Amino acid sequence: MKDLTVAEVRLTPILVADPPLLNTQGVHQPYTPRLIVEVVTAGGVTGVGETYGDTEYLDLARSLARRLPGRPVSDLNGLLALAGELPLDGHRTDGSVDVGGLRGVQTAGKLRLSVVSGFEVACLDALGKALGMPVHALLGGKVRDRVEYSAYLFYRWAEHPGGAARGSDERDAAGDDWGAALDPAGIVAQARRFAAGHGFGSFKLKGGVFPPEEETAAVRALAEAFPGSPLRLDPNGAWSVETSLKVADELRDVLEYLEDPVTGTPAMAEVAARAKGLPLATNMCVTTFPEIAGAFTTGAVQVLLSDHHYWGGLRSTQQLAAVCSAFGVGVSMHSNTHLGVSLAAMTHVAATVPGLEHACDTHYPWQTEDVLTERIAFREGAVTVPDAPGLGVALDRDRLDALHRRWLADDGSMRDRDDAAAMRRADPEWKAPSVPRW
Amino acid sequence: MKDLTVAEVRLTPILVADPPLLNTQGVHQPYTPRLIVEVVTAGGVTGVGETYGDTEYLDLARSLARRLPGRPVSDLNGLLALAGELPLDGHRTDGSVDVGGLRGVQTAGKLRLSVVSGFEVACLDALGKALGMPVHALLGGKVRDRVEYSAYLFYRWAEHPGGAARGSDERDAAGDDWGAALDPAGIVAQARRFAAGHGFGSFKLKGGVFPPEEETAAVRALAEAFPGSPLRLDPNGAWSVETSLKVADELRDVLEYLEDPVTGTPAMAEVAARAKGLPLATNMCVTTFPEIAGAFTTGAVQVLLSDHHYWGGLRSTQQLAAVCSAFGVGVSMHSNTHLGVSLAAMTHVAATVPGLEHACDTHYPWQTEDVLTERIAFREGAVTVPDAPGLGVALDRDRLDALHRRWLADDGSMRDRDDAAAMRRADPEWKAPSVPRW
Repeated sequence: MKDLTVAEVRLTPILVADPPLLNTQGVHQPYTPRLIVEVVTAGGVTGVGETYGDTEYLDLARSLARRLPGRPVSDLNGLLALAGELPLDGHRTDGSVDVGGLRGVQTAGKLRLSVVSGFEVACLDALGKALGMPVHALLGGKVRDRVEYSAYLFYRWAEHPGGAARGSDERDAAGDDWGAALDPAGIVAQARRFAAGHGFGSFKLKGGVFPPEEETAAVRALAEAFPGSPLRLDPNGAWSVETSLKVADELRDVLEYLEDPVTGTPAMAEVAARAKGLPLATNMCVTTFPEIAGAFTTGAVQVLLSDHHYWGGLRSTQQLAAVCSAFGVGVSMHSNTHLGVSLAAMTHVAATVPGLEHACDTHYPWQTEDVLTERIAFREGAVTVPDAPGLGVALDRDRLDALHRRWLADDGSMRDRDDAAAMRRADPEWKAPSVPRW
Repeated sequence: MKDLTVAEVRLTPILVADPPLLNTQGVHQPYTPRLIVEVVTAGGVTGVGETYGDTEYLDLARSLARRLPGRPVSDLNGLLALAGELPLDGHRTDGSVDVGGLRGVQTAGKLRLSVVSGFEVACLDALGKALGMPVHALLGGKVRDRVEYSAYLFYRWAEHPGGAARGSDERDAAGDDWGAALDPAGIVAQARRFAAGHGFGSFKLKGGVFPPEEETAAVRALAEAFPGSPLRLDPNGAWSVETSLKVADELRDVLEYLEDPVTGTPAMAEVAARAKGLPLATNMCVTTFPEIAGAFTTGAVQVLLSDHHYWGGLRSTQQLAAVCSAFGVGVSMHSNTHLGVSLAAMTHVAATVPGLEHACDTHYPWQTEDVLTERIAFREGAVTVPDAPGLGVALDRDRLDALHRRWLADDGSMRDRDDAAAMRRADPEWKAPSVPRW
């Protein structure tokens, strides 16, 4: 047998080009920090994982990485326990909202779980490669051969404000050729390009940017352009209960679900009770296991958007799906800006969840850069589940190094995602709005 | 890599000697049917599992066994899905209570899950052997090195009624040297022997046999004999709400939990609400995932007794534990008559569940027969988690064959466990009592 002991952990923080996508907090920065985790076994097998790369995640990851050598790469329960013991001195764990990342309330547990998720995926990749088994087989086996994803539509500008990402040779231009999308016609054009390029058959609009009437009109335009396609709208909790109910009334006939119209479980429960059957989804009011009971017992959530980064890895995601199944709550999948390593991980775990009946979210098509030798392709809106050992992806070291060099060269302004700060380049007075915004 | 395709499945129904243990439904038969499942891979590795062997389980197992060859032994999610598709023509799936086995309400889903559990364990054993990994590592890794078990005390006779199991050379005498235990002194003597022989430090009394006052006196006697030891009492739902509350009042200071005092979730919820903090445990009102929501949202259950046979295997047991954890419900483990294969499986999964803070139940010490080359030992009330590949146990084919020949020679009277029928050998008028009995 190959020696499955962890011999080395390599952490590579990188900055990834990100387009100027708008949300209720602000706008995506020109570059987003991500962290690539590599776990090398004594047998010489390397597994790769990916997670958030912001400073406080990186600090914690370094602390975890030091503790891994000598442990079996298969000891995933032990890895979770280990992460739970990490010291959090100086980290923001006061329950304050992580403004830049729209990642909901930040807690010590959530920070640890987000960090450990990248390690868990790297361990599963290494274990799969060592054993000659795909990650989905390590998770009990795929129940489908393709995982469907939804087109993730954003209001956006053509370029980052203030010419950011243009000033240095070290920084590639993060601009792309998508142009602006700031009204229903722009959103429909974006959706058409997504549909033509990747075959997506369901569409999610990131809302909370413009007044609800404008966003409602955009969804209506999508419904006319793509009759019968499942549609979703996600204002990231920016609305009041009354606004949410008004939107629910206007879009009930075309929405697959309404995502986080309001902030917090009690408000979600009130909307759900009065939404006349329109399902509510969340990746905000339930992002940890302790938040589940309050939401499920009050009927606040009909679809839970899982995210292996939030929940501590692929096995935790399966457990989350089991909890949802027991309570008759549907499962879909949330996404923040991510690269191909995480898309592969999402695809493997999604392939193993029997009740995953909604297409998963992914930002991946927005990313012009990756760290893989070969980008993952969407065909008819789906990713084929890899059957090669591990995740079935390979790191391109040159690309990884280039993105790491960008991180090294950064003056610190991009190393922590902060969409409100990015917005202040366009509007110096901008503050992340308090909720309800409308 | 070894070829992990299933090449062959061998099913061996057996009859296992069982002592005359009493419960509210009747008495254990001289022999209990069990089924040994062997899954052989194309690479020549054999994995073993164990489950119920009653005729309707055996029929369904045969149907499942025919469908397995050609599938990857790692495809456990597919195995569960396959079991869900099995035809159930002629099986008892009408929601009637499985009288003999005290296994709660019988449904099609539960029957399938009980059958597939033996196959899942066999597949995990084969997979672990093929990969050189213990089953616990396939389940994410052990979080403890020893799994604690509780002494399972029973009211019992010295011998089976009517001299059963004595009449034929084909049938070994199922008698043992434990003698009768029919009062507090007998129960304490039994507990002392369990403690001396296996080091058990917690004790469960199977109740529902004698009027509650007698059983309360027995628990009191245990508390005096073993001060500070966790105690449990399980009348298998035989009591009324008022009786349960009376017992709760009398034993609150010494019970770790009270198990299934009443039948059904609404009655359990009523007792729980009025039990002044005494936790209620169940393996009767919640035995399937769909029953969880009703019990957890009404506070009916504070400790759930998992059982990988009921719940569809070791991975489902982990998912059940995750559901319990999310809702702050404790986890312990239920047991029916079983052999060493199932004890090994129970030990592996229990080792991986972080929140398992109550000692597990096991009938194993009552079994004088086994199919293993070496019986599993309890030291200080615990089983050491095996680190050998697979389950870490080996079948003794001679013993297996002998128990199978007993099954073949049986006239059919023992092939389906029926504790009420066994009781009628002593009391021809006996009927399994309706509840509440007291």
